Amino acid sequence: MAFKHITSRDNPVYKHLRKLADNARERKKSGLTLLEGVHLIEAYVQTQGEPQLMIIPEGKSSLEATDLMQHLVDVDTIMLPTLMFADLAPVTSSSGIMALVPVPEIAVPATVDFALLIEDIQDPGNLGSMLRTAASAGVQCAYLTQGCTDAWSPKALRGGQGAQLILPLVENVVAREVVQQFGGLTLALTMQGDSLFAQPLREPVLFAVGNEGAGISAALQHAVQRCVSIPMAHQGVLALESLNAAAATAIALFECRRQRTAA
Amino acid sequence: MAFKHITSRDNPVYKHLRKLADNARERKKSGLTLLEGVHLIEAYVQTQGEPQLMIIPEGKSSLEATDLMQHLVDVDTIMLPTLMFADLAPVTSSSGIMALVPVPEIAVPATVDFALLIEDIQDPGNLGSMLRTAASAGVQCAYLTQGCTDAWSPKALRGGQGAQLILPLVENVVAREVVQQFGGLTLALTMQGDSLFAQPLREPVLFAVGNEGAGISAALQHAVQRCVSIPMAHQGVLALESLNAAAATAIALFECRRQRTAA
Repeated sequence: MAFKHITSRDNPVYKHLRKLADNARERKKSGLTLLEGVHLIEAYVQTQGEPQLMIIPEGKSSLEATDLMQHLVDVDTIMLPTLMFADLAPVTSSSGIMALVPVPEIAVPATVDFALLIEDIQDPGNLGSMLRTAASAGVQCAYLTQGCTDAWSPKALRGGQGAQLILPLVENVVAREVVQQFGGLTLALTMQGDSLFAQPLREPVLFAVGNEGAGISAALQHAVQRCVSIPMAHQGVLALESLNAAAATAIALFECRRQRTAA
Repeated sequence: MAFKHITSRDNPVYKHLRKLADNARERKKSGLTLLEGVHLIEAYVQTQGEPQLMIIPEGKSSLEATDLMQHLVDVDTIMLPTLMFADLAPVTSSSGIMALVPVPEIAVPATVDFALLIEDIQDPGNLGSMLRTAASAGVQCAYLTQGCTDAWSPKALRGGQGAQLILPLVENVVAREVVQQFGGLTLALTMQGDSLFAQPLREPVLFAVGNEGAGISAALQHAVQRCVSIPMAHQGVLALESLNAAAATAIALFECRRQRTAA
């Protein structure tokens, strides 16, 4: 293993890491991204193998981080001054360890009978949280439209807590085409429509969810077989018009899981 | 109505508003808080009446904000320079209107048969989002422990999207006492325990949810009648240990709503 102490912001390796932290195009071009935190890196090691490079800040490491480094003694490591490290991390309360890794490609199963189609979610934390929920619910493939924020940004990865490492993702899809090609029930989660709870969700199903502000596009509502809604209390109160997109997604996906795991 | 243009940060009215924006103690002492955005202020007017004071920034207002102001011509209004206004707002992309209002006191119903107990949630956005979900699910009372962030901060109000205006809240509770006094089934949402989906939720029920990092305290797990969990896929993957607290709460509360609204 090679160990390197980088202290200049002009160092080409550091400049590349900065680009990867900030820029979806750079991540796409290089096929690389940054993982932050012991849990995420451990999940990567467990599911994909060794990172390409470990990145640590100067100063004392946490016990967890030290432990992890001892399991990855063969991986090249760079140490950065605290502020330079912080500029790579998605949050200020970083756990003090990052890794440079190839973006994994997780194969889509031949038969997908539980799918999620995410249209134009812009907030990386929200997208990550939806993917985390989807993985926990047993979704077999998540389709992301071109209008979605990058699922491989450090913030989206942090929100996903490892979901991107086990859930097959298909990015830059055209929503209508995904719906047309899906072999099963296609449902859009909207503010009107039949109750979610009245749907038969043991059969193959694709859920479409939309952007928090705008909801699901008219084109996509038109493309699916059925629009469904989550029956809410207090429908009349102005500001309380909807659940947030991540909460609505959680309710829908786990209603599917409930029906499928019921005796 | 009085209209005042305040341009100095030393103005005592402005200084008081800054304190209210930043400081839970000041909100508690004065019984006042700030609402941001047309939707939230409209919900306040609809449920509680007129605000005490409207606050707008210099420059052109949005059509929505102008509309709202025309319905509130009797309310005193102050105008602030853009930056001074921004320092009061919970987010940078503020909609350009705020209101000073008395914190409403919404009476707890005599009989509560669907309750949520929130233990030590620190993030105001998360707390707001949980309250929004709770109101949508038909929860009749939310109990918040002393360790929770203030439900009346501008950020928590924004996350709640009006929930705090219709959902009775009891703050600074001792979790154990709430559980002991609740007349019905008390369930803690945890990582182990019986499946949520196997619980009889048509009878009176209280759900306890905990802090994202630490989960529900041992004392509270001990106090409730039963610990329940949401059955997840991929239990083995390290980083994907749990749903986030807001998603788990949404799933639990709407499972209750599903059972109660089922034919």
